[in-house]
Amino acid sequence: MSSTREAVTGDASVDSLSSRFQAVRGATTALCETLEPEDFVVQSMPDVSPTKWHLAHVTWFFETFVLEPYAEGYRVFDDAFKFLFNSYYYGVGEMHRRPDRGLLSRPTVGTVRRYREHVDCAMGALLQERGEDPEVVARVTLGLNHEEQHQELLLTDIKHVFAQNPLKPAVNPALRPAPAGTASEHRFVAGVAGIREIGAAGHTFAFDNETPRHRVLLAEHALGSRLVTNGEYLAFIEDGGYRDSNLWLSDGWAAVLERGWNRPLYWSEDREREFTLGGERELDRNAPVTHVSYYEADAFARWAGARLPTEAEWELAASDLPVRGNFVETGFWQPVVGRDDEPQLFGDVWEWTSSAYGPYPGFRPLDGALGEYNGKFMCNQMTVRGGSCASATDHLRASYRSFFYPDARWQFLGIRLAKDGAA
Amino acid sequence: MSSTREAVTGDASVDSLSSRFQAVRGATTALCETLEPEDFVVQSMPDVSPTKWHLAHVTWFFETFVLEPYAEGYRVFDDAFKFLFNSYYYGVGEMHRRPDRGLLSRPTVGTVRRYREHVDCAMGALLQERGEDPEVVARVTLGLNHEEQHQELLLTDIKHVFAQNPLKPAVNPALRPAPAGTASEHRFVAGVAGIREIGAAGHTFAFDNETPRHRVLLAEHALGSRLVTNGEYLAFIEDGGYRDSNLWLSDGWAAVLERGWNRPLYWSEDREREFTLGGERELDRNAPVTHVSYYEADAFARWAGARLPTEAEWELAASDLPVRGNFVETGFWQPVVGRDDEPQLFGDVWEWTSSAYGPYPGFRPLDGALGEYNGKFMCNQMTVRGGSCASATDHLRASYRSFFYPDARWQFLGIRLAKDGAA
Amino acid sequence: MSSTREAVTGDASVDSLSSRFQAVRGATTALCETLEPEDFVVQSMPDVSPTKWHLAHVTWFFETFVLEPYAEGYRVFDDAFKFLFNSYYYGVGEMHRRPDRGLLSRPTVGTVRRYREHVDCAMGALLQERGEDPEVVARVTLGLNHEEQHQELLLTDIKHVFAQNPLKPAVNPALRPAPAGTASEHRFVAGVAGIREIGAAGHTFAFDNETPRHRVLLAEHALGSRLVTNGEYLAFIEDGGYRDSNLWLSDGWAAVLERGWNRPLYWSEDREREFTLGGERELDRNAPVTHVSYYEADAFARWAGARLPTEAEWELAASDLPVRGNFVETGFWQPVVGRDDEPQLFGDVWEWTSSAYGPYPGFRPLDGALGEYNGKFMCNQMTVRGGSCASATDHLRASYRSFFYPDARWQFLGIRLAKDGAA
Amino acid sequence: MSSTREAVTGDASVDSLSSRFQAVRGATTALCETLEPEDFVVQSMPDVSPTKWHLAHVTWFFETFVLEPYAEGYRVFDDAFKFLFNSYYYGVGEMHRRPDRGLLSRPTVGTVRRYREHVDCAMGALLQERGEDPEVVARVTLGLNHEEQHQELLLTDIKHVFAQNPLKPAVNPALRPAPAGTASEHRFVAGVAGIREIGAAGHTFAFDNETPRHRVLLAEHALGSRLVTNGEYLAFIEDGGYRDSNLWLSDGWAAVLERGWNRPLYWSEDREREFTLGGERELDRNAPVTHVSYYEADAFARWAGARLPTEAEWELAASDLPVRGNFVETGFWQPVVGRDDEPQLFGDVWEWTSSAYGPYPGFRPLDGALGEYNGKFMCNQMTVRGGSCASATDHLRASYRSFFYPDARWQFLGIRLAKDGAA
Repeated sequence: MSSTREAVTGDASVDSLSSRFQAVRGATTALCETLEPEDFVVQSMPDVSPTKWHLAHVTWFFETFVLEPYAEGYRVFDDAFKFLFNSYYYGVGEMHRRPDRGLLSRPTVGTVRRYREHVDCAMGALLQERGEDPEVVARVTLGLNHEEQHQELLLTDIKHVFAQNPLKPAVNPALRPAPAGTASEHRFVAGVAGIREIGAAGHTFAFDNETPRHRVLLAEHALGSRLVTNGEYLAFIEDGGYRDSNLWLSDGWAAVLERGWNRPLYWSEDREREFTLGGERELDRNAPVTHVSYYEADAFARWAGARLPTEAEWELAASDLPVRGNFVETGFWQPVVGRDDEPQLFGDVWEWTSSAYGPYPGFRPLDGALGEYNGKFMCNQMTVRGGSCASATDHLRASYRSFFYPDARWQFLGIRLAKDGAA
Repeated sequence: MSSTREAVTGDASVDSLSSRFQAVRGATTALCETLEPEDFVVQSMPDVSPTKWHLAHVTWFFETFVLEPYAEGYRVFDDAFKFLFNSYYYGVGEMHRRPDRGLLSRPTVGTVRRYREHVDCAMGALLQERGEDPEVVARVTLGLNHEEQHQELLLTDIKHVFAQNPLKPAVNPALRPAPAGTASEHRFVAGVAGIREIGAAGHTFAFDNETPRHRVLLAEHALGSRLVTNGEYLAFIEDGGYRDSNLWLSDGWAAVLERGWNRPLYWSEDREREFTLGGERELDRNAPVTHVSYYEADAFARWAGARLPTEAEWELAASDLPVRGNFVETGFWQPVVGRDDEPQLFGDVWEWTSSAYGPYPGFRPLDGALGEYNGKFMCNQMTVRGGSCASATDHLRASYRSFFYPDARWQFLGIRLAKDGAA
Repeated sequence: MSSTREAVTGDASVDSLSSRFQAVRGATTALCETLEPEDFVVQSMPDVSPTKWHLAHVTWFFETFVLEPYAEGYRVFDDAFKFLFNSYYYGVGEMHRRPDRGLLSRPTVGTVRRYREHVDCAMGALLQERGEDPEVVARVTLGLNHEEQHQELLLTDIKHVFAQNPLKPAVNPALRPAPAGTASEHRFVAGVAGIREIGAAGHTFAFDNETPRHRVLLAEHALGSRLVTNGEYLAFIEDGGYRDSNLWLSDGWAAVLERGWNRPLYWSEDREREFTLGGERELDRNAPVTHVSYYEADAFARWAGARLPTEAEWELAASDLPVRGNFVETGFWQPVVGRDDEPQLFGDVWEWTSSAYGPYPGFRPLDGALGEYNGKFMCNQMTVRGGSCASATDHLRASYRSFFYPDARWQFLGIRLAKDGAA
Repeated sequence: MSSTREAVTGDASVDSLSSRFQAVRGATTALCETLEPEDFVVQSMPDVSPTKWHLAHVTWFFETFVLEPYAEGYRVFDDAFKFLFNSYYYGVGEMHRRPDRGLLSRPTVGTVRRYREHVDCAMGALLQERGEDPEVVARVTLGLNHEEQHQELLLTDIKHVFAQNPLKPAVNPALRPAPAGTASEHRFVAGVAGIREIGAAGHTFAFDNETPRHRVLLAEHALGSRLVTNGEYLAFIEDGGYRDSNLWLSDGWAAVLERGWNRPLYWSEDREREFTLGGERELDRNAPVTHVSYYEADAFARWAGARLPTEAEWELAASDLPVRGNFVETGFWQPVVGRDDEPQLFGDVWEWTSSAYGPYPGFRPLDGALGEYNGKFMCNQMTVRGGSCASATDHLRASYRSFFYPDARWQFLGIRLAKDGAA
């Protein structure tokens, strides 16, 4: 199997890595500024982790995979945290049961903050001393990308927690609404066909699941010029979309019946309002629809006489586009209204593809416990692409593959249409 | 149905009621002094409520049943709390789902404290103004007894929360261990037989389920001179008690198999240590066994060639004994070693009786929503008697009936033996 | 513990016992005459057993508890049947899981019939040879009473099986409807008060749970002159009985919400028809309501301003009445319309009492594995009295105690009202 | 969407179609010759259907999709069967709940046989009259292929039913054991690479999910020369395969832990014997391993340093091979020992591929309710290829795609290895 080091390429001098370390760690902390200590504790479903668990787990990642093997004389902050804050790395040892993360009032938020400081301090020293050791660089870079993934989870998880509360509190009451606007006309744009290459090219950091770069064969097809909007999704609902079994995959229809789905996850029952990180707000019909499952995306596409894109179709369309996001930088954490002037494949909502998440031909996971990062999830999940408004901008790229079970809805998940044949 | 007022008798002058109000409310707050804000949030199973829920619910009780009907011009603190902090009074309105109480990070502990102050302030004024109105007195007295019940639940619930935590934190690290000692020899003492009376006599406060006082017919029997100890329960375990289906009720044996029970709830796997409110401590073999279900108490009794007492047998034995407890006053919140000099029926552990919880002949619940307090639980539960080390001393009396499902173990629940015939 | 023998008294000469053996065994077989082989296989819920399981289990009972210990040289029919047809006697060995009884297509009905013949033949010889041995008499008598209990279960279980079938087949298409009639006026009749005796007097067979006969103390009360009718229960429904939480025990209300109960088990949705052993028929408003849970009986009584009787009240009222039933003899297996001329406490529907099923003072179960017959169920269930239209007439008596969980509805379970004070 | 007709090509003259109709229908009936009426009733898990349900459902298919639309004056056998024997065609109407199929003792086996005769008679007449109508031909052909699929399910379902029975009865006691032999040496054989075509070519019947034929791009790879044997799988087990989380997909490891998997479905606990359609027999170490889930196949491949083939790799390897099977023809219904002289891709066990089941580029399901046949299952399942010893020989072809959830084990499911690069 490949070593961690091979997974990383590009400039990572000591100074820039230290700076980036501080920037990413600081961004995580900044996300919690509006939270009360009580908010850090709750786990609203097994998929959701408490905020303080995220803060501690990403720290555990640096402690376990960087400090313990590379920082001589490093003193572990608390031995019990090995058990409490391991997520799913069996190679490292036993772990606390995922559904029980919300049962822990201790360690307190204060203790978790001290844990972060303890690790940050040791990391600062290590980076000074061994910041050019390629394996250290590779693992720190992986740790920072890992932490950026958890920044997004932290936001989507606390959104889910607050959404369960009948008081409907805002995670960040100061968040501006995303700018209103008019959705451009939806068109189908011819995609790239023939034999092409997808996968990480090796110029920048990439996860192992983006490799190896390889050839794919694409038939003629076309992609939607923009994301499906709330207004269009409303039309689907009003046309009986949730009542017509013919539109649904068999497992999707079972989900509709068993869970009583009849609208996106955070819409109010009257379909007039939507719960956002800034609290409950009027539904913007021109904004991209989000918090829909794969089943809903697939049913919508069938209703619209279209289909969802494959991940290869998506990646080739995105390859030459600039990445954008709105995360902390922009200050509104909702997908924004489609713009006509530029294709918008990044940073609004993850776009469901019709591709089951699996290994690329010749895929080899990282060595050791880090090999559990991505590879062991290559079954039962669907690939999503493009990143969301809660993704750090510098975290995204055309080859990036994320993945969720087809019934997942708590992430910013949306819909781009595709169809066979020329546009 | 009877009015609330009839349920209360005895002295309750304005001053003493105001003082008692402040004392009880203050005692509740004092129980939380060692907790961090994060600790107030967690619900470790549906039977357990978060600490801040208890603090708010007992306050809601005064707001709903005293201030709203009797305090002219009273301003409700927050309308949403009617929904959030109603426990099970359908007569008052809809309520938040019990198993979801742990999903609420808001209102914060600070807000709940302000809620308490708001209500305490209004209650102070009301008691000054209408503190001799018998219905006000009756309802305030009921509210204080209600709050004392929740003091005990608050302690047993937070104990359960902390027991789930692999860090095994102490709820109160300063708690002294209960004094060591030697268990007296266990004897059977002849009980009271013939036609007798049980139930509340009307001299002091009593809940509706203790009424009406009525005649019962008791056969000859004898009761254990003291509670069953940890050491005796260990002997049961070591004799294969948890592996012999003949000792168990059918439903109890199913519980043993399905839940893997093989020791009391808070014993360590090696049976050497016990989790207490003061943290994990060495098991005291002379102390009363506690945190056992009815099924375990019943199986132990069968193994010992005895049975559990009926509630009438217990009440008549307890009728002339002084009540004792160790709650806040004594400063150790564990059952204490049996003493030889005085019968010890109160204030260590609730004692399982063989009596299913039901209505006394002629029972009539309180009027209105308060009638839901006790009566609607008169099915599927077993009566327990005597109060525990977590009960407020002035809250207990011989006629007091509490009740739990036969599989409950998270309360301080213990075992007293009985047998048929003369001692 | 007492021996089996003590549980039985009365005449049981060889001839009469042999005759009775043949009569009871034959009656069981006769119940299945209208069934197809496929009907014998199905288990529609864990409480229900397949018909052929009943036929085999009662046979296993004679084989295990009579033939094996007392018939020298007896050859067991099939060793595997010890495992397959043991119901819940841990003392005898391991057993097939109850919920899996419907997974067995083999042994076939034919093989089970041969099993019955094999055992009947050996029993005939044993009774000739040792039919006056008191322990044999006692165990055979117990076995026959056991088989009569299973006759009733066989009928109620196959009724449940057929009720699940959208074809709504009749168990016995030739069954006459119970005679129509007019319900007499409902009155309350003064019951027996003071110190009295209940329990088996020892003149006839009785199960261990009916002993020992003992004194009870009854307050003044009155009992309904007849069972509650379908028409009266309809009035409860139409008055919103299933929508008013105030009428229900807490656990009952949870059952209403979770299971969507809004009428007795076998009523059609429009409340016009009722599924019977003779197929679906028009609801007879004058017939006793049946197939209601304890929760429903209790809620109905509360709605009616009454309560359910205790088992002592019921037994004393029934003590001097003649037993009647309609089982095989009468040929209609539905409760019949109340008659004015005679109190009707037996043989229509089991009557829910407010008494939790428990041991009488001084109760001792039978010795050995037979001690598992009754005693280990003395928790979480409610006592029912009087027997039903599916009970063998000679099986019933005033002291007879049966018991069901409060949510059970698949038996013929009905309602008699009671109230405190003189009539 | 395409019409049914387009899905069928090739010779289907009236006579041959009538003959084939009779042959296929007769083969179904023949499969049940060794069963008792009781055997036709049981459903041992939701995925399994009772034998008589299969017999009726395939008949319902002809009645609904052929006779009702095309046979003038056709009289439906029983209207209720539309509801009872519809499997999952929402377009046709409501249906009986799948997990409840085992609750139906009626219609009896005899009635189901009469149903078959009624439909066969009408089909005979229709085929005489309109046997050249291309749409009739297409639908009858589809119906026969459908019935052949259910022949296989009938066998695997009744095998599962019998396997639950502690008596371990044989479905067919006369079944010869598959011939013993020696497994050939396992080699990797270079597969076909580059741009190729897969999918149904239109010369013979194919299901819609095999279309359209399309180009695929394959990298260099090699396939195992034969299936993995029981002996090889034993080595995996003995090497701790079921205890090493590193070998497993995350969802697979969860299945291992939750369900306690430690061997293939029908192996005895001591791994010496295997339950077959002919009863329990000694495990043949040279025979192909079967009744393993995708998770187990994938873990085995990882342990072996290999991977599973993609469906394109498999199909290209199989394209020029003759189809073989052993179904009714051969008389043993177990996979047979690998032979050295010919590649053996068909007719032993379905071979798990690493390809998630999804639509081919440009896939269009059949029109109308028949479009529900395959398309709506294109999520969460894995494609399997090659057919099993329970498949009708004339039913299989290289392009055939079947599909199961990754945790399915009750079919004849086995393992062929693959690896990247030249052999």
